[in-house]
This record gives sequence, C-alpha cells and structure tokens, in this order.
Amino acid sequence: METAPYILHYAPDNASLIVRLVLEELGQPFRTELVDRKLRVQDSGEYRRIHPNGLIPALETPDGPIFETGAILLWLSERHGALAPLPGAPERAAFLKWLFFTSNTLHADIRLHFYPDRHAGAPDCVPAFSAATRDRIIRHLGLMEVMATERPLWFRPETPSILTYYVSCLLRWLALYPEGGTGWFDPASWPSLNAIAAAMELRPAATKAALAEGLGQTIFTKPSYACPPEGSAT
Amino acid sequence: METAPYILHYAPDNASLIVRLVLEELGQPFRTELVDRKLRVQDSGEYRRIHPNGLIPALETPDGPIFETGAILLWLSERHGALAPLPGAPERAAFLKWLFFTSNTLHADIRLHFYPDRHAGAPDCVPAFSAATRDRIIRHLGLMEVMATERPLWFRPETPSILTYYVSCLLRWLALYPEGGTGWFDPASWPSLNAIAAAMELRPAATKAALAEGLGQTIFTKPSYACPPEGSAT
Repeated sequence: METAPYILHYAPDNASLIVRLVLEELGQPFRTELVDRKLRVQDSGEYRRIHPNGLIPALETPDGPIFETGAILLWLSERHGALAPLPGAPERAAFLKWLFFTSNTLHADIRLHFYPDRHAGAPDCVPAFSAATRDRIIRHLGLMEVMATERPLWFRPETPSILTYYVSCLLRWLALYPEGGTGWFDPASWPSLNAIAAAMELRPAATKAALAEGLGQTIFTKPSYACPPEGSAT
Repeated sequence: METAPYILHYAPDNASLIVRLVLEELGQPFRTELVDRKLRVQDSGEYRRIHPNGLIPALETPDGPIFETGAILLWLSERHGALAPLPGAPERAAFLKWLFFTSNTLHADIRLHFYPDRHAGAPDCVPAFSAATRDRIIRHLGLMEVMATERPLWFRPETPSILTYYVSCLLRWLALYPEGGTGWFDPASWPSLNAIAAAMELRPAATKAALAEGLGQTIFTKPSYACPPEGSAT
C-alpha cells in the first residue's frame, strides 16, 4: 500500500479546503484526517501537539507538521515548484506582498467577521464591531480587485495559483457566513475577483474537493452550505 | 555616487524598524524616505502608488515595491540567502508556519491592541475589546515562548533571523503602546522570548537602527519612547 506523503487535518468547508484544492491541483497524493468540530477535537491534546493554536488546517509532511494556511500553501508551492512564482523570479516580490496581505489583513479580518462574539468583548458591542470589520473587508477587496485588473501572472483566471484558490475560498465564505449576515456581500462588486473564482470552480481540482466535502456546484460564485459526508463545517 | 538598491519608506519606531534592522544585519546598502505621519503622508496619492493600503513600511526594490512586513522580510532573506531557512531546507516548514503566525495572528492582534478605537466600532466598546485582544496576545506569546524553548535554528539568541528581529520589535512595542495601557505587559513572563530580544539589542545592527531612529538603549528589553531626528512615531 502506498503511503501518502501528506496528511491533511481538515473539517469540511474550513480553511483546510484551500489546502485540499491546492493538493489536488498539484496532483499530490494525500490522505485526510477529520477534525470533528462538534466534538471540539481541535482542542484535544493530540491535535494541539500538531497545531498548538488549535486551528484548522494542519498538514503533516515529511518535514514535520505545518499550520497556518498561508505557510502551508507557500511551502507546497516551493516544494513542488508550481502555483506561485518561485524564489528568484522577478514576480516573487509582488506575489509575496499580496499573499501576506491576504493572510494577515483580508483573511484575518474575515475571521473577525465570522466570530465577532469572540472578539468584540461584550455582546452589546457585536453590531458596531461587525459593521467596522465589514467596512474594512470591503476596502481590502477593493484593493485586491484593482490588483487583479492588472492581471499579474499569478492572479488571473487562466492560471491557477495558491492565491487564486485562497481568494476564491474567501469569497465563498463571505457569501455564506456569518449566517444571516451576508446581505451586504455582492460578488458583482469585484468583477475581476469573481472572474477568477468562476474559473477556479470549473477546474477538476475544485470538482474533486467539492465532492469530498459535499459543497455542491458553483462552489465559489454561488455557493451553498456544505452537506459533507463526514464532520461539520462549524 | 552609488545608488542604493533599496529605498525604505519608514517612520521612526514603526514596523519599518524591523525591515531596517534586517537590512543592517544583512549589510545591504539602502536609503530611507521618511513617511511623515504628522502630515499623514501615508494617505497621499504618491505613497498609495507604492503601498495602496497606506501602511508603513514599503520597500522599493529592483523588482518593484514590496509592502507587508512579513513579505518584505521573507523576500530579503531569499534574495540574500540569509537570516532564514531557505526553500528546500528541512527547517523551512517550521519556520514558515511561525512567520505566518507572527504576521497574521500575533502582529495582527497587536495592531488591534494599539488602535482599538478603529476596530471596536464604538467608544463604549473599547475597554471590553481591548481586554479580549490583550488576552489573545498573551496566549499567542505563550505559544511562541514554548516554541522558543525548543531552540529551533532560526529562533534562538545566538543566531539572528528575520523572526528574531520581528518578535523583538513586537515585544518593544507591547512595552510602550498603547500609552498608559501597558501595565499588564511583563517580559519576564516569556523568558525565552526575552532572551532573544536581549541578544538582538546588543547586535551592531540594533545599535545603528537605534541611532537612526532615536530609540535609546536596551531598545527591546527596557525600551523608551523614540526621540527621532526626523518624523514621529505616531
């Protein structure tokens, strides 16, 4: 029996989806290990030994476990020499700045947006906190839209990259979460980003990932809630 | 006249300090361009062409401008083959996960901590928001402390890396900001991190950076507010 070099610790429709898509796009064999959020497995001692911060995903590799979505994606692209400009390439500088922006600004604010109760400090403060966070996300998407209209090699519909999948997943989740709080989100406001998402969801990697996690069709541009064969999204 | 390959857009004692320290440690020639915060130069059209999000730092390079502290640091380490495990090295995976954690979790929460009024949504919500943020920062530092006790090659007092400088600067700023709100912060709680900071502040790179930005002595372990020769920290 072949041993897969990678074990992806995942929950359906969690940030692990981005890593799954990239592994599929790279054609790399991997096996998955469900992190059962209903049982809060992410807080178990066993999981915390892999990911001390208890977040999903984590990827076990021959070089040890990696966590942080951005780190996993970047490492995979370096390891397999694909889906991102490599060190030394002239596009590396621009690519890295938008990867970090996506990770520490766009994605970080999206997490605040999804879990305002953990961050606002008091229940009364949640509405104002959520409004301020949403306004920042709109600005961040506007900056990425401008960048996408310039069609850099590593961020265009024709060419998958770790960043096209990363941003496509973020658009999916903004359309779905927080439940009941997505009326503001209209992907038509960011046509270049939406064009990338539309192209990514047609790729075989997306079809395979959608099947594995029960995501249905048009997973990025007109998503529906996951109906996964195992585990739960929240 | 020699032309420096790099132009660092900086404000004293801002995140640009981390980049300055790394450029000094690498021995790379660079010139600086003050971003005058009192005049809000970071919001000018000219600056926004370099950094569309209007944050400090930005670094102009032969490959175009880079923003995002983590991206600049990583790119410099790759470009000059120093201060971080390079792609292909077995330590790369662990290094990248902690670099991203520092950027998108620790540093991101520290920004929330310094500017709660921008994020809490309403003035009444600031105290609760700040308390929740501070508690998260304490947890993040705890995770990094555990990692530091394992003394990975790229995070120990004897060996500077982009991450030792990054974290040392964050400790500096937690001791200073927000003004009047630092009573909770005791670096002795994180002895391994503090040992790294203590070693970094003795390096010639730190002495040069401290002189350039008016930071005084013991800039990481017992910092005082900057008294810079030009510009302002806030």
